[in-house]
Amino acid sequence: MQSEQLPLKIKRMKRREFNLSLLAAVPAFSLFKLQSPAQLRVDGRRLNLHLTELAEFGKTPEGGTNRPAYTDADLQARDYAMKLMRDAKLEVTVDVVGNIVGRRNGSETSLKPLMIGSHIDSVPAGGSYDGQVGSMGAIEVAQTISDNNVRLRHPLEVMIFQNEEGGTIGSAAISRGLTAKDLDNVTNSKKTIREGIKFIGGDPDRVASVVRKKGDVTAYLELHIEQGGVLYNEKVDIGVVEGIVGVFWWEVTVDGFANHAGTTPMNQRRDALLAAAKYIDAVNRIVTSIPGRQVGTVGKIQAFPGAFNVVPGKVLTSLGLRDLDAAKVQMMFERIQAEIRQIETATATKFEFKQVTSSKPALTDPAIQKAIDETAKQLALTTKLMPSGAGHDAQEMADICPVGMIFVPSRDGISHSPREFSKPEDITNGANVLLHSLLRLDAMGAI
Amino acid sequence: MQSEQLPLKIKRMKRREFNLSLLAAVPAFSLFKLQSPAQLRVDGRRLNLHLTELAEFGKTPEGGTNRPAYTDADLQARDYAMKLMRDAKLEVTVDVVGNIVGRRNGSETSLKPLMIGSHIDSVPAGGSYDGQVGSMGAIEVAQTISDNNVRLRHPLEVMIFQNEEGGTIGSAAISRGLTAKDLDNVTNSKKTIREGIKFIGGDPDRVASVVRKKGDVTAYLELHIEQGGVLYNEKVDIGVVEGIVGVFWWEVTVDGFANHAGTTPMNQRRDALLAAAKYIDAVNRIVTSIPGRQVGTVGKIQAFPGAFNVVPGKVLTSLGLRDLDAAKVQMMFERIQAEIRQIETATATKFEFKQVTSSKPALTDPAIQKAIDETAKQLALTTKLMPSGAGHDAQEMADICPVGMIFVPSRDGISHSPREFSKPEDITNGANVLLHSLLRLDAMGAI
Repeated sequence: MQSEQLPLKIKRMKRREFNLSLLAAVPAFSLFKLQSPAQLRVDGRRLNLHLTELAEFGKTPEGGTNRPAYTDADLQARDYAMKLMRDAKLEVTVDVVGNIVGRRNGSETSLKPLMIGSHIDSVPAGGSYDGQVGSMGAIEVAQTISDNNVRLRHPLEVMIFQNEEGGTIGSAAISRGLTAKDLDNVTNSKKTIREGIKFIGGDPDRVASVVRKKGDVTAYLELHIEQGGVLYNEKVDIGVVEGIVGVFWWEVTVDGFANHAGTTPMNQRRDALLAAAKYIDAVNRIVTSIPGRQVGTVGKIQAFPGAFNVVPGKVLTSLGLRDLDAAKVQMMFERIQAEIRQIETATATKFEFKQVTSSKPALTDPAIQKAIDETAKQLALTTKLMPSGAGHDAQEMADICPVGMIFVPSRDGISHSPREFSKPEDITNGANVLLHSLLRLDAMGAI
Repeated sequence: MQSEQLPLKIKRMKRREFNLSLLAAVPAFSLFKLQSPAQLRVDGRRLNLHLTELAEFGKTPEGGTNRPAYTDADLQARDYAMKLMRDAKLEVTVDVVGNIVGRRNGSETSLKPLMIGSHIDSVPAGGSYDGQVGSMGAIEVAQTISDNNVRLRHPLEVMIFQNEEGGTIGSAAISRGLTAKDLDNVTNSKKTIREGIKFIGGDPDRVASVVRKKGDVTAYLELHIEQGGVLYNEKVDIGVVEGIVGVFWWEVTVDGFANHAGTTPMNQRRDALLAAAKYIDAVNRIVTSIPGRQVGTVGKIQAFPGAFNVVPGKVLTSLGLRDLDAAKVQMMFERIQAEIRQIETATATKFEFKQVTSSKPALTDPAIQKAIDETAKQLALTTKLMPSGAGHDAQEMADICPVGMIFVPSRDGISHSPREFSKPEDITNGANVLLHSLLRLDAMGAI
């Protein structure tokens, strides 16, 4: 039904795809396949075309993508992804939580599936690569396997997880299950998770049935843009992710006293915004004073009443801390608290921290790291072992199976912005590493 | 029409007022008046009752007043004030800019009017005394004069200036005239000044006709709550205002670059909120490092995009500086700018300051200061010469005539807050000082 509503431009693009898939049937491709699976390559032109087509859904005037989960643009992008998955001969279903699952059977019926995938929802005013490269990359891998009649031992599942940007909702539903409280949370689309699941064709009353146990999945591999500037600045082709940092968020309230900005002497003020300013500066100072790659961010702030002529009596702000080591996050939080005590005394204000998110760090599997690294080197690509500063669906999946992540460079390290960009050849490289890492894991006895 | 919509409670109060004004006609009052004008006193009970009644318009659950200019609550309060002015036998008109003018003729037709008054609009979530004490006080003085058939030499004009809290709009319209740019400014009610003037019955196309020249007004006297804690803490009855500080406001924009809060290393960030925090702290440090009574305030802040997981790329904030000495304000602004250059370098951000308000300091007239001080002492009240940290309509009027201001204590120095409070006896004292200062000025040859 949704595809009926696609703009003409997209319909035209679909015809072009059709021609491309015809190409896969020409003798050169079949011959190639029969000669050596090690020589298999994804079709980089097709992959990058799919990314360009996908970027039409929720496209912004600035050239970015505004496609939060559970919006009309999300629905259209999901329909588009499902069509590509069917083209790749995957059996497509939408699970009760709204994840898109594209399945291809393996030759050994006793084996649990190998999963690859990512997400296609974006942050508001985001870019056209985050999640999308890994999603289109996984479909391209499946298409390449299908085009070349490669028979895997394991079943293959291509996953498009729903609402990654709203807190890895789709993958969390599989790994740990969603709570009633999760379902009531309002997400970027202004819908609750519950409403969103209904909107994309799931059933919020049956979410428990989607949970998988440890051992239900052989491994999960995710291709993703780095979203930082390390690979780009160091001119490295492939990032082998050693782990995904834990993400800890707090809502912070500062209570002072609102008073007239002209008549209240400086030494009689209880200025909540001055206190918040000292806090923001302290977070930066503490986080940067410790060696390592941890980050700390204050992203939100509101002052009340918020007028030129009133000393702010109340401020709502935030704290975000991330690191691969949860103990280091705890240590930074304690140092911030110690400084807060001094700020409270100096400004006659009171702080309150309420933790709203806590996702523990997730390490990737060392055997999978090794498989990705060796695969990339065989493809003559340079590699670097690195943490992921962003949360990903792989982080949730790490609870129930070994996981691995493959990063490709982000220009200038920019992400969550219309200026987000990765070079087509880097994306193609990443998809080839995903393809051959998958083939390597498929051949391994156990991971 | 507006009075039709008054709640029942107000209608009941009106009947009580009516009884009070009947009281004014009993022989004791007439006799009193005939015996000695020096013995004249305002009716403190009536004055404080009027304040309580006025506080019903825009009353908040916290017990404060939310009555920005050009709101329905403002309209209702204006109707109430006009009714009281008519009770006081004033000839009531609304000028083309929306100020309420209540006039009583004097005995000498060649003399220019003596003006008394204040404003009845409030800040959002403000108190029930700021402006309101001076407005009800001026009407009470007129009522006392009328009740006692006192004949002044000068015409008397009781002024309720419109939109004082939005930048002394009504008094500025009289003293310097409003510009087209002024009329386009959006004020606390979300209306532009132009829309607001229409809303309260003025004509924004004819605002030039309301301007008065130097010499058109003999003098302007304003009773007001101190809004600071000096009189309250020092247990002084009456503040004799030596001048009103200049008020200078800037809108401040900080440009950084929005990026992913997880993947952007601390040393690669251009965090506009971190830069703003350093700026807010610097303003406080600079303003408090100089001896004197100057104040500096950052009251507004917004961060964009304002999310947990994005380094803020842009911040809109503010600066407010006040002092009796404009040169000191300039010096503080220059020191802040010097510090801004360092913050820009340290945080890779860019600041922009746009001045939106600049009201120069206004000194009160020494002869009027003396008249107020002597009057208060004759009434056995203690006095203190002091600056006004808040801007007032008197500041605008100082451009065209000699002005004086009378302060009464504010409990705990709290203002622009529901907790704003002045004792009824202090308010009555202030109104008696206003009455007798007015009689004293009326008797003087020239000021």
